[in-house]
Amino acid sequence: MGMIVQKFGGTSVGSIERIQHVADRVMSEVQKGHQVVVVVSAMGKTTNQLVDLAKQLTSQPSKRELDMLLSTGEQVSIALLAMALQEKGYAAVSLTGWQAGIKTETVHGNARIIDIDTTRIHQYLQAGQIVIVAGFQGVTEKGDITTLGRGGSDTTAVALAAALQADKCDIYTDVTGVFTTDPRYVKAAKKLEEISYDEMLELANLGAGVLHPRAVEFAKNYQVLLEVRSSMEEESGTTVKEDVSMEQHLIVRGIAFEDQVTKVTVQGLPHELPMLPTVFTALANRGINVDIIIQNTTNSGAAAVSFSIRTEDLPETLQVLESFKGAKIEYESQLAKVSIVGSGMISNPGVAAQMFQVLADKGIEIKMVSTSEIKISTVVSQENMVAAVEALHTAFQLDEKAAVRS
Amino acid sequence: MGMIVQKFGGTSVGSIERIQHVADRVMSEVQKGHQVVVVVSAMGKTTNQLVDLAKQLTSQPSKRELDMLLSTGEQVSIALLAMALQEKGYAAVSLTGWQAGIKTETVHGNARIIDIDTTRIHQYLQAGQIVIVAGFQGVTEKGDITTLGRGGSDTTAVALAAALQADKCDIYTDVTGVFTTDPRYVKAAKKLEEISYDEMLELANLGAGVLHPRAVEFAKNYQVLLEVRSSMEEESGTTVKEDVSMEQHLIVRGIAFEDQVTKVTVQGLPHELPMLPTVFTALANRGINVDIIIQNTTNSGAAAVSFSIRTEDLPETLQVLESFKGAKIEYESQLAKVSIVGSGMISNPGVAAQMFQVLADKGIEIKMVSTSEIKISTVVSQENMVAAVEALHTAFQLDEKAAVRS
Repeated sequence: MGMIVQKFGGTSVGSIERIQHVADRVMSEVQKGHQVVVVVSAMGKTTNQLVDLAKQLTSQPSKRELDMLLSTGEQVSIALLAMALQEKGYAAVSLTGWQAGIKTETVHGNARIIDIDTTRIHQYLQAGQIVIVAGFQGVTEKGDITTLGRGGSDTTAVALAAALQADKCDIYTDVTGVFTTDPRYVKAAKKLEEISYDEMLELANLGAGVLHPRAVEFAKNYQVLLEVRSSMEEESGTTVKEDVSMEQHLIVRGIAFEDQVTKVTVQGLPHELPMLPTVFTALANRGINVDIIIQNTTNSGAAAVSFSIRTEDLPETLQVLESFKGAKIEYESQLAKVSIVGSGMISNPGVAAQMFQVLADKGIEIKMVSTSEIKISTVVSQENMVAAVEALHTAFQLDEKAAVRS
Repeated sequence: MGMIVQKFGGTSVGSIERIQHVADRVMSEVQKGHQVVVVVSAMGKTTNQLVDLAKQLTSQPSKRELDMLLSTGEQVSIALLAMALQEKGYAAVSLTGWQAGIKTETVHGNARIIDIDTTRIHQYLQAGQIVIVAGFQGVTEKGDITTLGRGGSDTTAVALAAALQADKCDIYTDVTGVFTTDPRYVKAAKKLEEISYDEMLELANLGAGVLHPRAVEFAKNYQVLLEVRSSMEEESGTTVKEDVSMEQHLIVRGIAFEDQVTKVTVQGLPHELPMLPTVFTALANRGINVDIIIQNTTNSGAAAVSFSIRTEDLPETLQVLESFKGAKIEYESQLAKVSIVGSGMISNPGVAAQMFQVLADKGIEIKMVSTSEIKISTVVSQENMVAAVEALHTAFQLDEKAAVRS
């Protein structure tokens, strides 16, 4: 008997029928003798509908009031799930973020959790109750409601698991686990039995989309054992933990990719302006997220810098850059980023060379490269994206059954 | 310059356009230099939609969880109204019941307000902010969300006005004020300029539906000056206060009526059962609301009791009564209750006699009578209801212009 935190996303609680199904999932853990804390998101499209209401009133809603508005979505879900469990004969109680003691900084729309006072949750658990907590929300010291931003419910679940010293945190989602790459694009994609926090973090940041990076970081810091699994199917999912047993055998654990990438190159800035801080401070001030950055020196000795952005940010990026007198700007859109991730790279030199060779063999031109200890990213043209992923998936032995145990 | 509490009901905030209109109403008071606290209900049919969701899960939702669910409705409204005011350039902040310091008993679904800690509201008002408070909700000492039951937002507004010692509490609604009788049925109905708390209380209890009786009671206890007025039209409404200037001239201030009344008569209960406590305890335990009660003694000396109920409660009432062995039950449906209300009655004997004469002159049979200090109620057949109201409206000089000043 132990304590489990379960998290169900918006799709999993998207209708009355699905909420009843979630109740079944919760009950099956209770029947095993576990204490269960459940974190839920807002039902289906609720959050978007609430944002639409606000947008009808103002193009720039106050973030405090937006948090006040959006936090109602999870409050509806927790009450309904509690009712569903009670109807099935189980003792359950719902708690909003503030009732669950989730204290955050005073940053509306994207608050970080500072502390969780678990007194009330513990009282209910000790009284034999299933505790249902609203994800994505907390409260400031002053008593204002905050939301945690994207992936906030994952973060709530992991933070609660850490604060309660739960044995496990199960993240229920609409896929059966973490895959070697996106199975919607690559048929050979395989579900991973295990993955390390660091690998998951790189995959999450690269847009694998299963788990929010903030939640993974939190789990790593507090060594919370995670399992990513399907809310619809019974099969076991992917465990995320510190040490992964197959690390030695599998150099590359997954391949992430995203399209809609644009490469921008700037040169010719006035000499009195230091190139890198000038450009990237200006972009950051406009909230433009820059990914890969490469500094070149041209033959003439003039400084040039290239970087990648999401294509949707291109118009604003050009606007920023054009404000610099004399700047010469080039850009190339319809690109994609393809990255291989694996902690095995640390002890295996030559992985980058192998990656480049695989792409070269397929006649795929590499337009940018960026590396970290456990990740190598390349930018290629969008039309080559899937071919690149497939070739790398095969070359790094991810197609093979041996790589996977599920 | 003073402090005003304004309350807007669900219809008044039923759409984005209406919320913008409410914002205009709030701004016009701010422009006059007043400090303004606004209480709002949930948008339009939101509460019913939330109840429907719960009913899909369980026929008897836990009252705690239902409060958790329903309280989101007002939270959406307050956030949207704050945004609407901010968009128009006004400083506004929204507060849920618990944030506004509204403490209630631990009675879910129908909690009474125990105390209001106005510290936070005062801080915002002093900082020049418009404070928007969620109606209908509060929080228990333990930190659970409660709702105040029917008419709860009216109660919130009046209680806040009392706690803040506001100069005035304006209840905005979809009618222009309190009328001598329902203008939808009686063309001669006139809007009253003033009405006393006691008269309003009798009219509210009798189904006039403009103001909830709990709110009126609260206003009377704390001497809160109320005005009932239209959220759509500019004209002034009806003031509700302790002493009404026209009291001496107007014996009857209003005529209330409701159809769907059924009269039930019971006799022949076993001798060992005390009639009145037995019958009415059994009915109360089933939540059946009994209105007029008349105890008779038949010629044979057997005890008999007659009472009126809402016709919708008839099946359950019969079920309760039939459980008493030997009980002889009669009932008559398709009845209506017509009541005259006015504090002038106290000093004017013979009002009841006059009422009976007016009805007799019209050939209307009176089936039950009940009186209080400022009210006389009669039960008549449903088909005579409007004729009775019209005759009484004329007889007690309510048709005349002199009775009204608006």
